[in-house]
Amino acid sequence: MMSAEQNLAKLNVELPVIPKPKAIYKPCLIDGKYLYVSGHVPINPDGSRIQGKVGADMDADSARKVARHVGMCILASIKNQLGSLDKVKRVIKILGMVNAVPDFTLHPHVINGCSELFVEIWGEDNGVGVRSAVGMGSLPDGIPVEIEGLFELHD
Amino acid sequence: MMSAEQNLAKLNVELPVIPKPKAIYKPCLIDGKYLYVSGHVPINPDGSRIQGKVGADMDADSARKVARHVGMCILASIKNQLGSLDKVKRVIKILGMVNAVPDFTLHPHVINGCSELFVEIWGEDNGVGVRSAVGMGSLPDGIPVEIEGLFELHD
Amino acid sequence: MMSAEQNLAKLNVELPVIPKPKAIYKPCLIDGKYLYVSGHVPINPDGSRIQGKVGADMDADSARKVARHVGMCILASIKNQLGSLDKVKRVIKILGMVNAVPDFTLHPHVINGCSELFVEIWGEDNGVGVRSAVGMGSLPDGIPVEIEGLFELHD
Repeated sequence: MMSAEQNLAKLNVELPVIPKPKAIYKPCLIDGKYLYVSGHVPINPDGSRIQGKVGADMDADSARKVARHVGMCILASIKNQLGSLDKVKRVIKILGMVNAVPDFTLHPHVINGCSELFVEIWGEDNGVGVRSAVGMGSLPDGIPVEIEGLFELHD
Repeated sequence: MMSAEQNLAKLNVELPVIPKPKAIYKPCLIDGKYLYVSGHVPINPDGSRIQGKVGADMDADSARKVARHVGMCILASIKNQLGSLDKVKRVIKILGMVNAVPDFTLHPHVINGCSELFVEIWGEDNGVGVRSAVGMGSLPDGIPVEIEGLFELHD
Repeated sequence: MMSAEQNLAKLNVELPVIPKPKAIYKPCLIDGKYLYVSGHVPINPDGSRIQGKVGADMDADSARKVARHVGMCILASIKNQLGSLDKVKRVIKILGMVNAVPDFTLHPHVINGCSELFVEIWGEDNGVGVRSAVGMGSLPDGIPVEIEGLFELHD
């Protein structure tokens, strides 16, 4: 069985660089065997955000790619916090928030972009937790997707 | 004092059949003495979803009935996972999400439909946890209500 | 180092009076060393709610003041539950929900109003947890801001 770090290496991607918070929050917080992760946003290499209202400026497939990118940002934050993705035992929960038009219906399809990534990193069982994939009225900076999570750490 | 299963039997209803997830999530996840429950949606007996924007296609009272139905779907998922509702000690938290028009104001009235059911099953104290009852911009498949939860299990 | 209660006294404000829930929820719930706090709303001294859609009826700076007021309501509820804010060790998580127009972008600025208050009470480290600051389609009674939270208690 491959470790999370080996699985990440196999993807052959560079994790995004996560800027220090401008607002008042911690990107990650450890509480005993739990890792809480703040709502993460899609950050471009130049620090700007990917923007767009899903169902108007961007279709569901494009938004799914953004959700995967948000997942990459979460991996980067976890690595900043813990040093290694191998310290995470499993995904407990994610909340996937899609900034969509009022009649948008494909939120699960969008958030699967992040969930697939977590399966690639932590596997078919440990990479999958409970989830809500829902539509927001608006999101910070006009981003299309924001995702927060709760993870269990190894002892 | 009646057990949760006895209280369910008294309601004389059949729990909905919950289809296997099509997207990448677990309906329920056990972590020690906690049971995490994914955002649940209102599923018809034929597998289709109840649909409608609250405040436009559906009024608050109808949406409250949908919220009760979502609660029934949560009970069904918990029973699938644990075998018996009696293994749940109490409700810790629910997040009630209403797919409503921008000027809708009666979210607590709507989500009470689910909260009342949980009181009928687990009682006046253990059936009531903390809660947020809020309005989403959109929800998967155009459903009017989605609810997620956190429960404590008996030792 | 000042205690949370000493910090509150320094602010020289009177905490809002939180009415008993009309809907089916507990304002706070203790689970071992955790304190869960329901979505709190901005309550005026006469029991009415502060209302307004952010980005239409109210700008981001005004909404930030409302978020601080919601934070005061959370402090009041915690004090009702525990007797003293000193029993809280730290903020683990808050979810800041802004009832905004679809193109609103300044949610973190708004929710900072609550986060700043928690820093004033519990300090630069313990007062800051993980956070999502996001835009809802609608909120109960047309309020501009609702905030829920999770806190760790001292042993």
